[in-house]
Amino acid sequence: MKLESVLILGTGLVGASIGLALRRRGVTVLLADRDLGAVRLAREMGAGREWHSGEPVDLAIVAVPPDHVATELRGLQKGGAARFYTDVASVKARPIARAAELGCDMSVYVASHPMAGREKAGPGAARADLFLGRPWAVCATAEASDDARDAVLQLIELCGANPVPVEPEEHDRAVAVVSHAPHVAASAVAARLAEASDVALGLAGQGVRDVTRIAGGDPALWLGILSGNAVPVADVLEAVSRDLAGAATALRALADGDDDAGPEVTQLLRRGVTGHGRIPGKHGGPAARYGVVQVVIGDRPGQLARLFQVCDEVGVNVEDVRLEHAPGLPLGLAEVSVQPDAVPVLTEALHERGWQVP
Amino acid sequence: MKLESVLILGTGLVGASIGLALRRRGVTVLLADRDLGAVRLAREMGAGREWHSGEPVDLAIVAVPPDHVATELRGLQKGGAARFYTDVASVKARPIARAAELGCDMSVYVASHPMAGREKAGPGAARADLFLGRPWAVCATAEASDDARDAVLQLIELCGANPVPVEPEEHDRAVAVVSHAPHVAASAVAARLAEASDVALGLAGQGVRDVTRIAGGDPALWLGILSGNAVPVADVLEAVSRDLAGAATALRALADGDDDAGPEVTQLLRRGVTGHGRIPGKHGGPAARYGVVQVVIGDRPGQLARLFQVCDEVGVNVEDVRLEHAPGLPLGLAEVSVQPDAVPVLTEALHERGWQVP
Repeated sequence: MKLESVLILGTGLVGASIGLALRRRGVTVLLADRDLGAVRLAREMGAGREWHSGEPVDLAIVAVPPDHVATELRGLQKGGAARFYTDVASVKARPIARAAELGCDMSVYVASHPMAGREKAGPGAARADLFLGRPWAVCATAEASDDARDAVLQLIELCGANPVPVEPEEHDRAVAVVSHAPHVAASAVAARLAEASDVALGLAGQGVRDVTRIAGGDPALWLGILSGNAVPVADVLEAVSRDLAGAATALRALADGDDDAGPEVTQLLRRGVTGHGRIPGKHGGPAARYGVVQVVIGDRPGQLARLFQVCDEVGVNVEDVRLEHAPGLPLGLAEVSVQPDAVPVLTEALHERGWQVP
Repeated sequence: MKLESVLILGTGLVGASIGLALRRRGVTVLLADRDLGAVRLAREMGAGREWHSGEPVDLAIVAVPPDHVATELRGLQKGGAARFYTDVASVKARPIARAAELGCDMSVYVASHPMAGREKAGPGAARADLFLGRPWAVCATAEASDDARDAVLQLIELCGANPVPVEPEEHDRAVAVVSHAPHVAASAVAARLAEASDVALGLAGQGVRDVTRIAGGDPALWLGILSGNAVPVADVLEAVSRDLAGAATALRALADGDDDAGPEVTQLLRRGVTGHGRIPGKHGGPAARYGVVQVVIGDRPGQLARLFQVCDEVGVNVEDVRLEHAPGLPLGLAEVSVQPDAVPVLTEALHERGWQVP
């Protein structure tokens, strides 16, 4: 079967982004959401057109919070909305179990989860390339038919993502470690800032900004995610909590002159370095090592254009760029990541053209 | 007194960066470090020239780890190295107390701490603009003379930073909240990744990358910082640990069907949103709200140059830029931050020129 028509139930960020991606590939996309404004916005963005039940589509995609997946799936199946079904919720074991309990037809349902998101929510934040090259977990149960799995794999391919077959329980443990628990930890660090003095906030730098960035997410949405994956997340949070309590105890011992407590702190920091180093880099492979060329730029139009013109002239490919503004002054520093052997080339070229390369 | 000559003891990242900044302002900079290679590298970078004791300088800057500040200060004072003294360590109360204990002349010493750093260490990572517009804490004790304080304020002004007068104890509590404890929390989250499955790492996204970025720092260096500020950091870590343990308990209760546990989790997430919102944005003011224009770009030379040429042509100032690569594919997305009213201008201009603006 070639995937030619889908129904997307739930036109939030993920649902609407799938619609945008599939429309570009010529798939017929029908949209539904309890929030009619969300459907309209998704339609205006080009994610598809409104669904009015009729001919069944090839695949129905349930894009609602985890605790609503099973009931919505059952409703769609009862109405004969599609030949095959999937969902894209960030928790897998419980919704799948619940769907079986509710008597859903499990032979035509394959749960899935694209590992892509943004800090912004809703169809207005949707983008066609949200899933490009991202992992997309596929949790096929033993009951699922090959055709159902094939339909979901086609969906993933059409969105440009990489299918990652994984058991529901393993999926949930994995996202607890790499997504759900880090979110709560970021919130707990950020919560300290809620009580901190203005002086303390005035001394805040980039480090705490990065650590707490994801803490800005919608609490109600996140409660749904966390409660749907409660036990695996609790396991990770308890381990993190223990490590932090242990570090606190060791630091108090150090303050009391017990130098033997130092190694416990160092060991936690070392484990952190190891864990941080395991995060895959750009393009899914091991973290690439680029060279970085730093250039002082003025905070006004045209500077970046001229900078990248130089890169272009000398044939250097910019792998990444990071603008660091100097707070309070109209000056910034661009950190341009390039292949290591391009560093001297670019540095010299910029130097010759009068750029400040610190 | 006009600050005309300084001695920098310790030519790591911060010391060498101060040297670079002061040299540009015409100040005579003398460099010293136990690591002769570090002095040589700092000199080669233009941070100053090697110190050979002789005429006293106006100001000696002790740029060594916190637990070495007092002894180095005493050594310099004994040798009559300077008229005034400061240090730039990231902990203040203990080094100041220790200096008094060691019989240092506290009338000519004003401790300080620039809130600037990088993930990279050593003089090779130094930059003249490291302190531009950054807060620089000044902890003058009651014994310090006005002249000593004035010398340190001149140093801060010459480096382009903003002096923030603060009591040593308040400083230490503040940096525990906004810098030291977040570092340990990031390490504890990253430590979980050290033990996680390859599947879990394969599902890692940008969120956990940001949360754990600072966990890559040097464990030995950080042990020195943390042990120098042990009690305030332990206080924060215990509070974070309690919050995480509480969230874990609430999640287990939710898993057992006790819906009353939800609000406890939501409350922590809400406090996180509040705390995160208090972090000052770019240019030191409240977090600015820029509009973001997203543009699909090819991963090859010249694309960025052309993109920024368009910004230039239509007179739009680029406030920030973020390149998001699509892993596995030669395509990326540039998120260009501009003033809100420039969004439609730039979007239309890019559209007209055939750019993909999702």
